Amino acid sequence: MSAYTAPVEDIRFVLNEIAGLGDVVGLPGYEDATPDLVEAVVKEAGKLASDVLAPLNQSGDQEGCLIDNGVVRTPKGNREAYQQFIEGGWNGIPFEPEFGGQGLPWLVSTAISEIWNSANMAFSLCPLLTQGSIELLGAHGSDGLKATYLEKMIEGTWTGTMNLTEPQAGTDLARLRSKAVREGDHYRISGQKIFITYGEHDWTENIIHMVLARLPDAPPGVKGISLFLVPKFLVNDDGSRGDRNDLRCVSIEHKLGINASPTAVMSYGDDKGAIGYLVGEENEGIKCMFTMMNNARLAVGLEGVAIAERAYQQARDYALERVQSRDAASDSPESVTIIHHPDIKRMLLSMKARTEAARALAYSTAAYLDTAKRHPDAEEKARAQALVDLLIPVVKAWSTDIGIDAANIGVQVHGGMGYIEETGAAQHLRDARIASIYEGTNGIQAIDLVGRKIVREKGQTVAALIEKIRRFQPDTSNEDLAVISRRLDTGISNLEQATKWMIDTYPKDVDAALAGATSYLNLLGTIVGGWMMGRSAEIALNKLEAGVGDPEFYKAKIVSARFFADQVLVEAPTTCEKIISGATSITASNFAAL
Amino acid sequence: MSAYTAPVEDIRFVLNEIAGLGDVVGLPGYEDATPDLVEAVVKEAGKLASDVLAPLNQSGDQEGCLIDNGVVRTPKGNREAYQQFIEGGWNGIPFEPEFGGQGLPWLVSTAISEIWNSANMAFSLCPLLTQGSIELLGAHGSDGLKATYLEKMIEGTWTGTMNLTEPQAGTDLARLRSKAVREGDHYRISGQKIFITYGEHDWTENIIHMVLARLPDAPPGVKGISLFLVPKFLVNDDGSRGDRNDLRCVSIEHKLGINASPTAVMSYGDDKGAIGYLVGEENEGIKCMFTMMNNARLAVGLEGVAIAERAYQQARDYALERVQSRDAASDSPESVTIIHHPDIKRMLLSMKARTEAARALAYSTAAYLDTAKRHPDAEEKARAQALVDLLIPVVKAWSTDIGIDAANIGVQVHGGMGYIEETGAAQHLRDARIASIYEGTNGIQAIDLVGRKIVREKGQTVAALIEKIRRFQPDTSNEDLAVISRRLDTGISNLEQATKWMIDTYPKDVDAALAGATSYLNLLGTIVGGWMMGRSAEIALNKLEAGVGDPEFYKAKIVSARFFADQVLVEAPTTCEKIISGATSITASNFAAL
Repeated sequence: MSAYTAPVEDIRFVLNEIAGLGDVVGLPGYEDATPDLVEAVVKEAGKLASDVLAPLNQSGDQEGCLIDNGVVRTPKGNREAYQQFIEGGWNGIPFEPEFGGQGLPWLVSTAISEIWNSANMAFSLCPLLTQGSIELLGAHGSDGLKATYLEKMIEGTWTGTMNLTEPQAGTDLARLRSKAVREGDHYRISGQKIFITYGEHDWTENIIHMVLARLPDAPPGVKGISLFLVPKFLVNDDGSRGDRNDLRCVSIEHKLGINASPTAVMSYGDDKGAIGYLVGEENEGIKCMFTMMNNARLAVGLEGVAIAERAYQQARDYALERVQSRDAASDSPESVTIIHHPDIKRMLLSMKARTEAARALAYSTAAYLDTAKRHPDAEEKARAQALVDLLIPVVKAWSTDIGIDAANIGVQVHGGMGYIEETGAAQHLRDARIASIYEGTNGIQAIDLVGRKIVREKGQTVAALIEKIRRFQPDTSNEDLAVISRRLDTGISNLEQATKWMIDTYPKDVDAALAGATSYLNLLGTIVGGWMMGRSAEIALNKLEAGVGDPEFYKAKIVSARFFADQVLVEAPTTCEKIISGATSITASNFAAL
Repeated sequence: MSAYTAPVEDIRFVLNEIAGLGDVVGLPGYEDATPDLVEAVVKEAGKLASDVLAPLNQSGDQEGCLIDNGVVRTPKGNREAYQQFIEGGWNGIPFEPEFGGQGLPWLVSTAISEIWNSANMAFSLCPLLTQGSIELLGAHGSDGLKATYLEKMIEGTWTGTMNLTEPQAGTDLARLRSKAVREGDHYRISGQKIFITYGEHDWTENIIHMVLARLPDAPPGVKGISLFLVPKFLVNDDGSRGDRNDLRCVSIEHKLGINASPTAVMSYGDDKGAIGYLVGEENEGIKCMFTMMNNARLAVGLEGVAIAERAYQQARDYALERVQSRDAASDSPESVTIIHHPDIKRMLLSMKARTEAARALAYSTAAYLDTAKRHPDAEEKARAQALVDLLIPVVKAWSTDIGIDAANIGVQVHGGMGYIEETGAAQHLRDARIASIYEGTNGIQAIDLVGRKIVREKGQTVAALIEKIRRFQPDTSNEDLAVISRRLDTGISNLEQATKWMIDTYPKDVDAALAGATSYLNLLGTIVGGWMMGRSAEIALNKLEAGVGDPEFYKAKIVSARFFADQVLVEAPTTCEKIISGATSITASNFAAL
């Protein structure tokens, strides 16, 4: 079993130096979140993660969940860990104090979420889904619904779920068939939903399902979908738990990973119809969903960062211990720890550098989110929101691909031991693998990025971002910064070229444009990541020159930034070429003829 | 459960048009292997694979192996399938008719192995290990040992295993501790071996272990290791099964994949010492192992091809059926099968094109192997052997990385269903994942390539190969061929540049050279793969122009070759740059300080 230690130094560095915690806590309502308080909270989270959540990660995976006549039993210790989690107030970190939340910035919540997910991704999914439900309810629920449900959900004594997918309706929600029929002040819901994370469990006395369904007179397609709150147990007027609602968990899935989290097939309304309450307006369910989508996608992107970090820690620790083969650069015939071997170093740096870049991107996007929510100046607010909208698909897809890739490399560093489940390295790969799929597959993120965030506004926000990146002009008398700066300049030109091509091509040959969508997303992630790594290196160099802090920490930051430039940013010209001259075979392919 | 159909057309195309089956069957001893016979054999193998082996793939994975007091039970149906397999004579395909083999070229055996591995990789590991044991015994065993064991092993009534790894000795065999003590005409073997594939099973009445161990007076390191044949049951003089030998299976591993294959921890000599027979000379065990290493690495590389093919078939079939979202290029609001979406096409082509390239490379290498073994002209023989030695690490590492990557993309094409084990897509990823680890990790392959195959001979063979590749001068009046040719030219220059850099750098800064070893291997794989895909496209175009064969098949060959050029070959300049200017951060990194 592998230990996990929250990378508190790294987190502090990114919060303060890259994502701008200082500015965020200056926003109205966040004044109490001083850097000292934030650091204390991060450290406390790290403690709970290491002591309670991480030790359950492997046992939970091996034990998995059981279902017996609709009752789901989660693995040993998970229920108790959840009690500890909510008793610590961790479920309410980013939410309004009005309903019992801690009122901390999303930036801080993001850092803490990383820690939970590194420690135990399967566990962390329950708070994640509850968080999404809280946002929906907070933004669109009636005062009555909020009064009844919000406090308990923010406390975590009740958990929340998202019920979107049906067998024929995954990405394509227009094909959704679940029904809702008006009945007095409520609705009767019926239909089957699949892939419902924590749709049933044994942690809390009630589960609040957010369900998409169609009214009988609804228009076809996504404009005819409404959102309902459907509790497992109805709630009496005095707030006590009432009757069992007409819904049940039919089965749970046997998955590749995140086995400690039950993924339920839910059936609504097998009897008289489940009682549900409208959230938002009729037929505006999808619109409601959009309000939580950015946060949910950020959270999934963060799972990528989190698993990459966990896999990196485990691989590095193994490489520091495992003795095998002599050092090629030495005359000694003695075998050395494998961390001495350049190919192992390459693998570890590939994990570390990309994890750092993805973390910097995710945290920065969270800071933009806080700014977009709270900034008193309308223009600043709008600018930040535009950046959020642009970067969210990148955070989601680029970071989850990094998570999978890092976990995959982590297995490789372990050699044969990596393939044995007992080692725990393989679990990270199995767990990470879902993140590029759910909450909109990474392909969908790329299509969203290109279609909605680039072409529709003719690249306005990406141009503003590029301008921001160009302002990074480090002191090139330092060789590392010179190389980073040069590679970044090349990358920016490639991004501009690819953006122009996308905007030109999309209207006249949408298939050619979409054939390059994934590469475009990777290119944008690489440039933004490279920029953030460049800033890290510059700051680290300044700290070193000023003699502040731990020199090894800052030296390592420069090394990983240089690696990112030489081994990742370097790909920008090729990625650009894949986009602008790589579509021919894709649009010409005709699989149906084979 | 997914079906598998042997890609007979693709296999025939590569055998005849790319790997040169015509030349191979002209070699002494292979005259009977006419193309017609070969095609019949391939088709027959495809039938057994589809009807018997493929249907056991998923059930075997789910059931796994059990051990009870040293007795291993393999999943239901596997034992019976093996009976059918050996009764068909499939175990002896490439071996000498003298001992009951079929005497077919390795090229043909390679094609057939691909089929077995696509159908059921876990099953196919047993014949694979037996094959390695047969080669060792055939090349180095005494006449007595050969007379006693070879026929049964070629028949498959007894299986073989390889016992190299010990807990402290994986890559680093110098650290091996198992002991052998002389005792009359045999030896007493003791020690523990791990990761022994099919080290114990219920398929056959005897298992023949090939075990590396050290004599008491052996020199230290790899020059003090000897090879022994250690049967599970001793064999009486009349060939009948004798006493149980002093060895046992202690446990079997719980692995990420290939769960139908038992991976054993073996203990030798807990009592008086297991009786073993020397194979080859004392202290020459490692040298003996080298005789089978090329074939074994080719076989593992082929697992990559095989899983990539299987994953591709399943993903393509799903994409042809699954209806989701409208066609972006159409005005119709109707949802279409996802194969219409460019990003899905991109993923499928990425699987298909690289599978085809890896197949062409593996088969061609097998043809060189046949030439190296059988060609009457000593110079031709030596030239072919040099190509084998150069390309084997590429086949092993490049193809297994493709296998993992293709299986990973296969999961992605399935969306949420890909994460559900029932679908079967995830199993391919879990199964494929071992192939980059065993038989020398891919990092070790890269180090072998750079150190032993490039630098030691100052790039002589790779230069000869480049000359061969340069002779490919297709008609560039065709746009596809023009693009392929141009990208290949660029790639060749990059390869030359990187090779020169390696040869110059290795002697003076071995760490910098080895930091680029994996990229160098990828570069070589990409160029050789691109060359073979270019030849495919040229041949396909000729067939189309001549009106021969199925035009859709040949059109598709051109499409995948073009894809390979535009999306894979295009990476060559970047990969070259990663090698020649990407080492700084890797050699500077100091993990131990963190």
